[in-house]
Amino acid sequence: MTAMRKPPQRGFCPSEFALRLQKMQSILQAEQLDAVFVTSPSNIRYFTGFDSQFWESPTRPWFVVVPREGSIIAVIPEIGAPEMARTWVDDIRTWPSPCPEDDGVSLMAATLSAVPRRFGRIGAEMGREMALRMPVADFLALRGRMPETEIVDGTPALWRARMIKTEAEVAHIRFICEVASDAYIGLPDLVAIGDTERTVVKRLRADMCARGADNVPFMPAISGPGGVPQIVCGPQDRVLTHGDVLFIDTGATYDGYFCDFDRVYAVGAIDDAARRANEAIWEATELGIRAARPGVTMESVWKVMAQALQDAGSIGNNVGRLGHGLGMQLTEPPSFRAGDETIIQPGMVLTIEPGMEYAPGKMIVHEEDIVIMDDGAHLLTIRAPKEMPVIS
Amino acid sequence: MTAMRKPPQRGFCPSEFALRLQKMQSILQAEQLDAVFVTSPSNIRYFTGFDSQFWESPTRPWFVVVPREGSIIAVIPEIGAPEMARTWVDDIRTWPSPCPEDDGVSLMAATLSAVPRRFGRIGAEMGREMALRMPVADFLALRGRMPETEIVDGTPALWRARMIKTEAEVAHIRFICEVASDAYIGLPDLVAIGDTERTVVKRLRADMCARGADNVPFMPAISGPGGVPQIVCGPQDRVLTHGDVLFIDTGATYDGYFCDFDRVYAVGAIDDAARRANEAIWEATELGIRAARPGVTMESVWKVMAQALQDAGSIGNNVGRLGHGLGMQLTEPPSFRAGDETIIQPGMVLTIEPGMEYAPGKMIVHEEDIVIMDDGAHLLTIRAPKEMPVIS
Repeated sequence: MTAMRKPPQRGFCPSEFALRLQKMQSILQAEQLDAVFVTSPSNIRYFTGFDSQFWESPTRPWFVVVPREGSIIAVIPEIGAPEMARTWVDDIRTWPSPCPEDDGVSLMAATLSAVPRRFGRIGAEMGREMALRMPVADFLALRGRMPETEIVDGTPALWRARMIKTEAEVAHIRFICEVASDAYIGLPDLVAIGDTERTVVKRLRADMCARGADNVPFMPAISGPGGVPQIVCGPQDRVLTHGDVLFIDTGATYDGYFCDFDRVYAVGAIDDAARRANEAIWEATELGIRAARPGVTMESVWKVMAQALQDAGSIGNNVGRLGHGLGMQLTEPPSFRAGDETIIQPGMVLTIEPGMEYAPGKMIVHEEDIVIMDDGAHLLTIRAPKEMPVIS
Repeated sequence: MTAMRKPPQRGFCPSEFALRLQKMQSILQAEQLDAVFVTSPSNIRYFTGFDSQFWESPTRPWFVVVPREGSIIAVIPEIGAPEMARTWVDDIRTWPSPCPEDDGVSLMAATLSAVPRRFGRIGAEMGREMALRMPVADFLALRGRMPETEIVDGTPALWRARMIKTEAEVAHIRFICEVASDAYIGLPDLVAIGDTERTVVKRLRADMCARGADNVPFMPAISGPGGVPQIVCGPQDRVLTHGDVLFIDTGATYDGYFCDFDRVYAVGAIDDAARRANEAIWEATELGIRAARPGVTMESVWKVMAQALQDAGSIGNNVGRLGHGLGMQLTEPPSFRAGDETIIQPGMVLTIEPGMEYAPGKMIVHEEDIVIMDDGAHLLTIRAPKEMPVIS
């Protein structure tokens, strides 16, 4: 085990939250919204710093209102008030919950109705890569209570804000990327041929936590001769066998921020076809990292990688894209895919994730995490070696 | 560390899923629904057995349709097809995702439109203690595509099915309750006065995983002199100090099923007021366990506990209820609260969770998990000792 890395300070100072509010408010102004209200854990944490594992309980809805002008308002169940009071938020309104008859709906209607009006439009998490964390029936009831207001999709505005990370956010993501990188490098010393996929995950997860990860909510591991049939499920009880490719992906967290990158290992010796495919995917990753720079579209970077994979003999890729945004969620917009015209900007944190099925049922996928700066992409992960590390 | 317990077989046999389908279909018939469609991880897993950590990525929606007659239909992104094919589900329909322009909406509209009609009503996860895992904008678009069908709240039907656990489900919950109980009992050997709350959680979580838990998504820990100000957030860097009460709650999982119960510890010696409050809450738990039996309402059990807490000098409880259902979610319906008229039935798994603030800012809460059988409640957890175990 390498030496422990020094984690960045937990939490963010009030000036960081003031900056986030200011950024959001100028976006609200530009998108002609009087406010946006959020219900999901990452959005609530982004604006308030409020952190809780209590999100595991889906019983009570929580709300945070970001008005176009003025301060943030938390509208939350009584059970959460003592802890919300420790954040930078001053305006905290509560109701006794659970209360199926009216779980925050009338309090939210009153709160939103009192927000200063100019455009008559309020945004909600109605769109992509977010989910509204409240009963849809209550959402429709809330909308019905406010006939004078148009409740519209606030997702584009929210993603415009969250897509560009601050330096402090990048420091969080870099730390967890480095922790996971160190653990990946050490894995061949922790497992051996004959171990099951489940054992691999158990040891690697424990090692990442020992190195400083808070948790590892996402760690699929799949093994198969020369490649794997899919990359999102597992581990199973399958035993690592000579000639296998072992694929592991990791979404570990530190203080609310994710890494998301995979590694592939050769179990004993893999055949030439697998070795060639692996090298081609490694090269496609290089091309993607070099192509990702301010001013170009996500699609243009996708094209470079897709072409390289096609030239290398790809027979398919069911992932649907070759990388994506990363931050408080394992996956965020934008996507490296055909049709994503988002312009890459400094402050974006992205994953470069080329992969292909090079023979039926044999998929290999690589992934690195990068931050975009004025001069191009900088790695947050420790770059995977060109040849697969060997588990023996 | 005590000996490892033998975990129940992972997964469920096809006959169990056939039973769940049959139960759901008779409920659909009774509630005059032609189908229910689900999008959330626990509902999809309940009907199909499909398990994935990929739910961490909110980018792609997934759907499972349970028709009133016939077989289950999975409508999912291509990336998930290989793994869904390993479940008992035969009818799997896919589309290439992510596809912001039409992420499953038209395929779902076609699928739902082809379901045999009798009532013209289809249920969706619109109600309580569940969240729709798809963009609400897409949900509204789907509804708009099917003007001849009423999309109604399917939550009551889904909870009617999931609320009554099968023997195999109870065996899963019992195992994870026992694993967590063993770890709680061993905790005083793992930590000491001077450790931080964060250290306590790190060690206890690692110990639970070593004992057989798959993961521990929920483990708030809070300490305070004689009691704690809240019970849902933390851990923080606070150092355990003589006279503290340390409160820890745990939602650990085994094969998709949760335990949910807390324990309190005395750090060194606690004062008499804390000791008296703790004993009263322990007694209220006894009363709750004895009162919870088939045929009585949830409210009636709540009353027994609430009265005992009031008699013991409670000055408040911001939790809003005194226990709840438990299963594939950390919290499920029904609730031990005023107004919950749900009749307790054999097969329900419930938490008995009385607590009170006995002095300003000093809360103590107990919790046990039970299964209801014909003859009354049976403990799934190893009952907490009447006096707090001591951390020295």
